[in-house]
Amino acid sequence: MSNSQGEEHTQKAFGWAARDTSGVLSPFHFTRRVNGDDDITMKILYCGICHSDLHVIRNDFGFGLYPVVPGHEIVGVVTEVGCNVEKFKIGDKVGVGCLIGSCHACENCQEDLEIYCPKVEINGTGKKNYGGYSDIFVVNKHFAVRFPENLPLDAAAPLLCAGISVYSPMKYYGLDKSGLHLGVVGLGGLGHVAVKFAKAFGMKVTVISTSPSKKKEAIELFGADSFLQSKDSDQMKGAVSTMDGIIDTVSAPHPMAPLIDLLKPHGKLVVVGASEKTVELPIFPLLMGRKLVGGSAVGGMKETQEMVDFAGKHNIVANIEVISMDYVNTAMDRLARGDIRYRFVIDIANTLTV
Amino acid sequence: MSNSQGEEHTQKAFGWAARDTSGVLSPFHFTRRVNGDDDITMKILYCGICHSDLHVIRNDFGFGLYPVVPGHEIVGVVTEVGCNVEKFKIGDKVGVGCLIGSCHACENCQEDLEIYCPKVEINGTGKKNYGGYSDIFVVNKHFAVRFPENLPLDAAAPLLCAGISVYSPMKYYGLDKSGLHLGVVGLGGLGHVAVKFAKAFGMKVTVISTSPSKKKEAIELFGADSFLQSKDSDQMKGAVSTMDGIIDTVSAPHPMAPLIDLLKPHGKLVVVGASEKTVELPIFPLLMGRKLVGGSAVGGMKETQEMVDFAGKHNIVANIEVISMDYVNTAMDRLARGDIRYRFVIDIANTLTV
Repeated sequence: MSNSQGEEHTQKAFGWAARDTSGVLSPFHFTRRVNGDDDITMKILYCGICHSDLHVIRNDFGFGLYPVVPGHEIVGVVTEVGCNVEKFKIGDKVGVGCLIGSCHACENCQEDLEIYCPKVEINGTGKKNYGGYSDIFVVNKHFAVRFPENLPLDAAAPLLCAGISVYSPMKYYGLDKSGLHLGVVGLGGLGHVAVKFAKAFGMKVTVISTSPSKKKEAIELFGADSFLQSKDSDQMKGAVSTMDGIIDTVSAPHPMAPLIDLLKPHGKLVVVGASEKTVELPIFPLLMGRKLVGGSAVGGMKETQEMVDFAGKHNIVANIEVISMDYVNTAMDRLARGDIRYRFVIDIANTLTV
Repeated sequence: MSNSQGEEHTQKAFGWAARDTSGVLSPFHFTRRVNGDDDITMKILYCGICHSDLHVIRNDFGFGLYPVVPGHEIVGVVTEVGCNVEKFKIGDKVGVGCLIGSCHACENCQEDLEIYCPKVEINGTGKKNYGGYSDIFVVNKHFAVRFPENLPLDAAAPLLCAGISVYSPMKYYGLDKSGLHLGVVGLGGLGHVAVKFAKAFGMKVTVISTSPSKKKEAIELFGADSFLQSKDSDQMKGAVSTMDGIIDTVSAPHPMAPLIDLLKPHGKLVVVGASEKTVELPIFPLLMGRKLVGGSAVGGMKETQEMVDFAGKHNIVANIEVISMDYVNTAMDRLARGDIRYRFVIDIANTLTV
């Protein structure tokens, strides 16, 4: 009998979940759907910790769908394939990111922009939509990407959210051209990967940060060409009208006007740090310089595969701290206070034990 | 002897100027430069009144360069050409807009985007930069455009600022494609011309205005497909996620969030109404829909010629009220309170008398 939807949830699974707004994670037994005709099942090896995981477990976005098993930077190995799956075979290294479902019919889906589908399903947001802090995963083949052989799976896991979240807007807004000057605001999980992609595109890169302590790493570790301390108004003034674009990865509220001033005419300020707050936007400089402020969310599946392949070609991975599953609550506390360089990745296969 | 700069200001000219922040205009004798080798001199026939003229005479932009002869929507007939001028001959119908000088060397100048040149000179901003509320004009040939024979010069004058200010961003932001749905915020001098261009591009057009009284004209006079009263939240809710782009022509402060909500994913909100104020910008909807808020200022000379030619082909002109020179102070008062449908144009040739 055909089982295209995999509706029966009888596969036993195990992970760590938050049960309430305290956000404290603890062991959790649950079930996943049986592998459908279009599905793959994977054994999870690693899962990155995205800053939005912290928001989800603490209910900052208001989903409130406990229990929540977070995690949407998942890499692993295929253990089962449905009868309609030709793209993957058992043993393949695969990744699953934020996207796990969409309508496949709307304009956005047809243009490989599933993230903007009105019916998009986002991974690990709670209530039976269990994410990657767990042992196995079942997903429609469309929402898995193949991993290049040369990338270490632990350090590559964050590409599935942090990576695509900066790669996609760089492509869409034309900030991927050799010789252009890109500013990257915030040298965190997204920011440090943005610097690496920008350098691989042949761009000149300036990191803009409130933390002068990050200057050395920005330049020596990630190859940024220069560094601006955003609270130093002299440094900021000296860089006015020098940038073709800026990728702003900081979700905490911060002023837009000084960033807009850094842009040359026709420059683009692209915001990728999710903030519930509004910001003060000056209109006059947008007009006088034909500048724009734009947003972007993750990226579609076709582009995610393209991004992973590009990363493989250029050896781009995140700088990570691998942790064991039972360290996750400590990791969340450290993440909340910015004490991580640059991404936590949970070693699921070796440390998640019943 | 070569006279490429036309440095000597010995041509007698006459117009109306504001002398102080009262903004009251009165007769004013002055001189213009002699016609240089690259210049043309024109007899002014008509000059449109732009909303920014009001700001300049009242010193709202802080230039403070009195006396001010405003006016940057100038049409007339060539009366003299310099020896290097092949493009125009005596008797040609020409137009001069906001741009009267730039460096001709920078990246923006080389890409025909003179308005974004750091050394751009804007027409009629005061202190020997005397605008079009006057009898003659001298300008470098580069900053004049040829007028199509079929356009009435009075009604076509506002194309030189209002026209290019909406045409240029529609082109730049890709909001010029047949079948796309464009919102136009504000049905004033710029807005009503934006509707006409959008219809000529084959777009579906919705006018968004605080004034329900403009519905009839928007649809019957200018061919808009629909009308949204922006203060009617039910109407606004019913139009959420329906527009590919919005041209926002309103300079008075107004909320951005409801406009961003009207956009489909990847939609573009383009602001062309100059405001010194900042606005509250919500970040989350920009991210979730990959939307952008961008600005645009007037347009370059090559594009201005293209726009005028397009207007000629499609018989696009402004809806105007022709006034005599001595009515100008009354016109300014009416403009300040929005009592004009849709652009004042001064009949310079017939009513400006010494």
